[in-house]
Amino acid sequence: MSEITKIGGGITAAKGFTASGIHCGIRKNQDKKDLALIYSNKRSAAAACYTQNKVKGAPIAVTKTNLTDGYAQAVICNSGNANTCNADGVEKAEAMCAVLSKAMDISSTDVIVASTGVIGLPFPLEPIAQGMEELVKALSPDGGENCAAAILTTDNKVKEMAVTFSCGGKTCTLGGIAKGSGMIHPNMATMLVFLTTDCAISPPLLQKALSADVEDTFNMVSVDGDTSTNDMVSIMANGLAGNPEIASDGEDYKIFCQALYQVTSSLCKLIAADGEGASKLLECTVQDAPSLVLAKNIAKSVITSSLLKCAMFGADANWGRILCAIGYTEGDFAVDTIDVVLKSDKGAVLVCQNGAGVDFDEAKAKQILLEGAVEIEIDLKQGGNKATAWGCDLTYDYVKINGDYRS
Amino acid sequence: MSEITKIGGGITAAKGFTASGIHCGIRKNQDKKDLALIYSNKRSAAAACYTQNKVKGAPIAVTKTNLTDGYAQAVICNSGNANTCNADGVEKAEAMCAVLSKAMDISSTDVIVASTGVIGLPFPLEPIAQGMEELVKALSPDGGENCAAAILTTDNKVKEMAVTFSCGGKTCTLGGIAKGSGMIHPNMATMLVFLTTDCAISPPLLQKALSADVEDTFNMVSVDGDTSTNDMVSIMANGLAGNPEIASDGEDYKIFCQALYQVTSSLCKLIAADGEGASKLLECTVQDAPSLVLAKNIAKSVITSSLLKCAMFGADANWGRILCAIGYTEGDFAVDTIDVVLKSDKGAVLVCQNGAGVDFDEAKAKQILLEGAVEIEIDLKQGGNKATAWGCDLTYDYVKINGDYRS
Repeated sequence: MSEITKIGGGITAAKGFTASGIHCGIRKNQDKKDLALIYSNKRSAAAACYTQNKVKGAPIAVTKTNLTDGYAQAVICNSGNANTCNADGVEKAEAMCAVLSKAMDISSTDVIVASTGVIGLPFPLEPIAQGMEELVKALSPDGGENCAAAILTTDNKVKEMAVTFSCGGKTCTLGGIAKGSGMIHPNMATMLVFLTTDCAISPPLLQKALSADVEDTFNMVSVDGDTSTNDMVSIMANGLAGNPEIASDGEDYKIFCQALYQVTSSLCKLIAADGEGASKLLECTVQDAPSLVLAKNIAKSVITSSLLKCAMFGADANWGRILCAIGYTEGDFAVDTIDVVLKSDKGAVLVCQNGAGVDFDEAKAKQILLEGAVEIEIDLKQGGNKATAWGCDLTYDYVKINGDYRS
Repeated sequence: MSEITKIGGGITAAKGFTASGIHCGIRKNQDKKDLALIYSNKRSAAAACYTQNKVKGAPIAVTKTNLTDGYAQAVICNSGNANTCNADGVEKAEAMCAVLSKAMDISSTDVIVASTGVIGLPFPLEPIAQGMEELVKALSPDGGENCAAAILTTDNKVKEMAVTFSCGGKTCTLGGIAKGSGMIHPNMATMLVFLTTDCAISPPLLQKALSADVEDTFNMVSVDGDTSTNDMVSIMANGLAGNPEIASDGEDYKIFCQALYQVTSSLCKLIAADGEGASKLLECTVQDAPSLVLAKNIAKSVITSSLLKCAMFGADANWGRILCAIGYTEGDFAVDTIDVVLKSDKGAVLVCQNGAGVDFDEAKAKQILLEGAVEIEIDLKQGGNKATAWGCDLTYDYVKINGDYRS
C-alpha cells in the first residue's frame, strides 16, 4: 500500500484552492460565521452525492443540475437557513450562484451551492448578495478554517482533515471540511462535506470513487437517526498536482480511493464525536459477519440505539442493550456465537461470550466507558465480513439543544 | 356497528378470571411488586404474538411451545429480570411454569410465562418459588390492579382497559393490562400485554384476530426505537360469556375484532403516554396516502424522529422536522401536496400547506403543544389510506432513566 500522510489544514491543502468564511447576517449571532466560499484557480472535475430524503433542500436540485457536465470551480454555502420547503427555493439557490458568478467571473453553472440550518423559513438572499464582495476579497490559502467555521450550525468544532499521497509520480493532496451535529443519519449521501484535491482524475472516476466511499464512511455515521433534507458531499479535483489524469481503474485509482477514505473516515469520526450534545464518540466494529450488508446493518443498529446511547452517556456497561440492538437488525444470523468487547484507551473488557453474559470487572468497565472515545467490538464468528459505524452518546444536552432549536 | 362499551377494570373484567401481584424479591425495592399471576377458572383458547428480535427472552420460547395446542389457563410474569441471554434461561422459564403448575394443579404446558427487566443477569428462581404460595392465595377478581402493577419496570402508571360487547346474543367482556415504558418499538409483536375475554372463540380465529390487530395497534407504538427482546402480547378466551363459539369469519368475528381494537388501541396510548421520561403523548395520523403501508411508515417515521420528539418536549412548532421525517420514509410519494396540522385540546393550527410553510400564530401553536396529548395530522392528498401511530416526547428524564438503568 502506498504511503498516505496526514498533514495540517483541510479544504485549502491541495494546490490551487483558496477559501473564506464570513458573517453576512443570516444568523442573528454576530460571532457565528454564516457564509462560506471555496474556490479553485482552475475549473475542476467535480462529483457529489446527495441526501435520499424525498424532502430536498432547493440547493440540492441546483447543484445536481450544475454538476451534470462533471465540472465545477467553486462552492458557496450558507448556514442558518436550509432553504428547504420554500416555494421560491430553487430560484433563490440559482440567484446565489448568479451573485457569485458575477463577483468572480466564473460560469454560474460551475458552482456547487449548499445551505444548512432551519427548514421552512423564508430564505434571505440580501445578506448573501451584500456580503459577496467581502467574501470574495477574503479568499486565501489560509481561509480554510474560517470557511470550515462558516458552514457549522450547532457544531462545537471545526472539522477538517487533509492527506498527501503519491500518484503517477506526483505528490497529490486531498483535504476536506465537514459540518455535522444534528439530523445526522446519512442515507447514500451525507451531512455537508466539501472535499478538494489537486489530483488529476476524470469526472466519471471521481464520481465512482466518491459514491463507493460514502457507503463505507458517511453512510455509517448516525447522531440521531434523522436523515437531513440537505445532506451533500462534494469533491473538486483540479489536477494541479500534475499527475497523469486517472481515467480508468488501476493502481492510481486505488491509491486515490485510499487517500479519500482516510480523509472521509476521519471526518466521520469528527462528526460523530461532535454530535449534538455528545460527550463521547462511539465506534462500533462488527467482524466475521456472514455478509457485508449484515456487518454494516448490525454496526449501525448498535450505534443508533437510544438505550445504548444513554447507557454510554452514563458509562454503564449494560451490554444487554447491545445484544438487543444486534437482535433487531434485519437479516439471517445466529445470536448464540456473538462476543462483545468494550474498549478504550483505558483497556478492554469482554462482557458477552457466545451470546451470554460473562463475569467481568464492573469497575474496570466503568473506567473504560468514562473515556471520550469508546469502541464496541462485536464478533459474530459467522463469516469474514467486517464493518465500522460511528455514533455518539445521547445526553441531556441533545434534548436541550433540540427542545428549542428555533429560538 | 355494534355497541362497544368501556367499563372499569382490566385483566379480571371478563368472567372467570382472577389475578394477583406481589413483591417476591427479584426487585430490590420492596415497594415494587415483581410477580404477577392471571388465572382462568376454565382452560381457555389462547393466542400470542412475540417479538421479532433475534435475541429472544427464554420465556418467549417456552410460551411458544406451551401454546402450540392453542390453549392455556394461566399467565405467570415477573419483572426485574428479563431472563434473556442466560445459558440456563429456558430451563428456568420451564421451572417457573412447573412451580405454578404444582401450586395450582394445572398442566405446566397450559402456562403463558413472561419476564421483563434487565437483560443478561443470572435469573433468580428462588424468590419466585418461595413467593408462589402467597401469589396463588392472593388470586381474586379484585387483584387486577396488583397484577398490572407487578409487570411494570420503569413505568409510572398501571395500564388497564376493558370493554363489553354483544356477541351471539350474549354480553361478552374483553380486558387487558400492559407494561411499556422503554425498549418500545414493537415489530410484529409488542411490549408485554395480557388480554382476557369470556367470549367463546376458537384458537385459530383468536390468533387471526390478535395477529391482525397488533399490526394496527402495538406495532404502531414507539417510545425509543428499540425493539425489546421480551415483547409479547397474549390473549386467553375462556368462553364463559356463553356465546356460540366464534369459529369462522362473520359478524361475530367482526364485533370481536372491534372490541379487541378498542382495548388494544387504548393500551397503546397508555403505553406511549407513559414512555420513559415522557411528558406528553404524540399521536400522528396520516391520511390520504397512496397505500396503507406508506401511511403506517410515514406515521411511524414522524413519531420516532428524535429531533421532532425533542421539539415536542420544548413545545416548539418546528414543523420542518415533521417534513424531514416524512421525507426519509421509504416509498414513492410526492412531498409537494402535504399539509400538516398540529392539534390538541387547545385547538388546531395549520403549519404547512402543500409542502411549504404558511404563516401561523406561534403563540397559539405553543399553547397547543404545551398540552399533555398532541396530535399531528398529516394529509398527503394522494389516495385513501389512513394510519395512526403513537409515541411520546424525548426528555431529560429519558436520558436520566437510561444513563444508569442497572444501578
